[in-house]
Amino acid sequence: MFRLIRKEGSARRGEFVTVHGTVQTPVFMNVGTSATVKGGISALDLRTVGCQVELSNTYHLHLRPGDELIRQLGGLHKFMNWDRPILTDSGGFQVFSLASLRKITEEGVRFASHIDGRRIFMGPEESMRIQSNLGSTIAMAFDECVANPSPYDYVKESSERTIRWLVRCRAELDRLNSLEGTVNPHQMLFGINQGGTYPDLRIDNMQRIAELGLEGYAIGGLAVGEETQVMYDLIETVEPYMPADRPRYLMGVGTPLNIIEGVARGVDFFDCVMPSRNARHGNLFTWHGKMNIGNERFAEDPRPIDEGCGCPACRNHSRAYIRHLLKAEEMLGMRLAVLHNLYFYNELTAKIREALDAGKFTEFYDKYTRILGERVDD
Amino acid sequence: MFRLIRKEGSARRGEFVTVHGTVQTPVFMNVGTSATVKGGISALDLRTVGCQVELSNTYHLHLRPGDELIRQLGGLHKFMNWDRPILTDSGGFQVFSLASLRKITEEGVRFASHIDGRRIFMGPEESMRIQSNLGSTIAMAFDECVANPSPYDYVKESSERTIRWLVRCRAELDRLNSLEGTVNPHQMLFGINQGGTYPDLRIDNMQRIAELGLEGYAIGGLAVGEETQVMYDLIETVEPYMPADRPRYLMGVGTPLNIIEGVARGVDFFDCVMPSRNARHGNLFTWHGKMNIGNERFAEDPRPIDEGCGCPACRNHSRAYIRHLLKAEEMLGMRLAVLHNLYFYNELTAKIREALDAGKFTEFYDKYTRILGERVDD
Repeated sequence: MFRLIRKEGSARRGEFVTVHGTVQTPVFMNVGTSATVKGGISALDLRTVGCQVELSNTYHLHLRPGDELIRQLGGLHKFMNWDRPILTDSGGFQVFSLASLRKITEEGVRFASHIDGRRIFMGPEESMRIQSNLGSTIAMAFDECVANPSPYDYVKESSERTIRWLVRCRAELDRLNSLEGTVNPHQMLFGINQGGTYPDLRIDNMQRIAELGLEGYAIGGLAVGEETQVMYDLIETVEPYMPADRPRYLMGVGTPLNIIEGVARGVDFFDCVMPSRNARHGNLFTWHGKMNIGNERFAEDPRPIDEGCGCPACRNHSRAYIRHLLKAEEMLGMRLAVLHNLYFYNELTAKIREALDAGKFTEFYDKYTRILGERVDD
Repeated sequence: MFRLIRKEGSARRGEFVTVHGTVQTPVFMNVGTSATVKGGISALDLRTVGCQVELSNTYHLHLRPGDELIRQLGGLHKFMNWDRPILTDSGGFQVFSLASLRKITEEGVRFASHIDGRRIFMGPEESMRIQSNLGSTIAMAFDECVANPSPYDYVKESSERTIRWLVRCRAELDRLNSLEGTVNPHQMLFGINQGGTYPDLRIDNMQRIAELGLEGYAIGGLAVGEETQVMYDLIETVEPYMPADRPRYLMGVGTPLNIIEGVARGVDFFDCVMPSRNARHGNLFTWHGKMNIGNERFAEDPRPIDEGCGCPACRNHSRAYIRHLLKAEEMLGMRLAVLHNLYFYNELTAKIREALDAGKFTEFYDKYTRILGERVDD
């Protein structure tokens, strides 16, 4: 259940009640693809860095260790020892970006596993069954994510099929939720808006999936090749057609700047591998802008990454030490960098919420869209 | 200052007072070669797993990030945020095992860095200067570690030179400790017994270095190729000549069994990369014996690695989850496995100390030398 607490322009401050606890929005979900965030991050660490929602992946967990195994062990929450909300991606994006030898039919997709080449079939029903076995809080609809740009006719056809798949997802999840012994019988379904970069297809798609009365709506198929401004424009195009009483989730986005811009356009949920992926290459986010800790100028720097930051890396270690660890390819370097970046992203959305609560989001927007894109050179 | 609290046979329960706190012996030192234990382990984690002494490496830290840099940042304790004792290996072993194009003279060793091939010279004075820059609690003498077996004449010649080097180490460290601005002016020096597998050379060497009145004595050049029984016999050969009022350190040893056998022969200090190296391959130590968590039989096992264990891995995660993480090559798998193994080793020496305190080491020895070598198949 979503409750809209306050608005400032299009920006929304809300609360999303789930069976695993209430999520304060806007929220950034922390991506733990294979039931852990890359960089040696445990569920306990996620608590430390202020994570509200963990995001895992249907495709990856189906391949390894297998969703039947996770179900047998009591579901994904128990498996990874995380009791707050989990959102599971449907596997659609991964089937279209990682797997090879893909063949799409009305039924679903046949493809080869990127791990061992094994032939696998996944359609709306299979994705729902896997997600039901995982028992996540929120299941995502199984969709086709087309590259940007793609030909109009193909996007139209794909978008139509994705809507038919969505109807099948809803039916299958309803059935699964009603079965005895389902891990999480309160599992919710978010639909996904597609339509490439074509405003008319996006709007048509959104209008039609809005009618299905789902628990939340995502904008998918963005940040996959198009210009950033195109993405912002498309959010503005679709937003008026998204139900106001449901959370909106911009999938796979993005930089701190993208998140602030997304919130300004009415988005409530975000997720991205950026904080962990960038961290592993020494690219860190701070309240003064971005820094690459590998830079020579930090070699003898006794200060924390970000003086005001309360993360475990900043509270205990210097730039010089973390830089050394990354240069020496020591895992601890990556772990500390990832902890810092996740903390930053979670704090970013916390500060956005504070600003919204105080009616000062415009001020926040003006200040931080200016600062956060800069490079820290001190 | 070493205080012998109690003896049971040759086994010793003692206390070693240092400027960074008192070490309860027997003790297992946790190896953090490059100022971190491999597997994403921080100084805070070392506290959690009950580490008393951290061990870092002169050779590695000299090459990267450089001991001058660490000195500038206040020494190794400050650099890695660890305030308890640190022992630094002298670099001797690494120069002889990792570096290439080695040339040994009376002065020291010229060699090529294993990182970038840079030509480097290290002799007793250089090793002491580096360790003084690091400011460790205990510096190890710079020695030559010969492979086992090596020809008698070579071992004799090498052992003689190592003694001459030791005298130079003592003089140089005394000088460094007396300088103003030395990171740790109370830095102690442990001498290292060498002599290959030749009892007469071992005894001669030990008698002569004992006369130097150093703060502790190590047995080096074991567990480098010889049979385990040969190692045990050589410890028994040398032990009577080691000063009873100084701690004895068996370098680079070993399995839990080796440690119990070492304690039974009068050894106080141990170190080994085994707990972290084995962990990374899924080889775990438990109070019921060894297990490889990669084994299929653990795939659906909801139990912790070791039911009675209080480590962060066992308190929070199942065998099935940790196995999954290692199979998926997720860093968290290695981190949890390393945390478990380090905790086990630290608890092993804690239990040895308890047994000695209670006058029950023989009982402990009989029970655990039987169990700990076995395989856990449940």
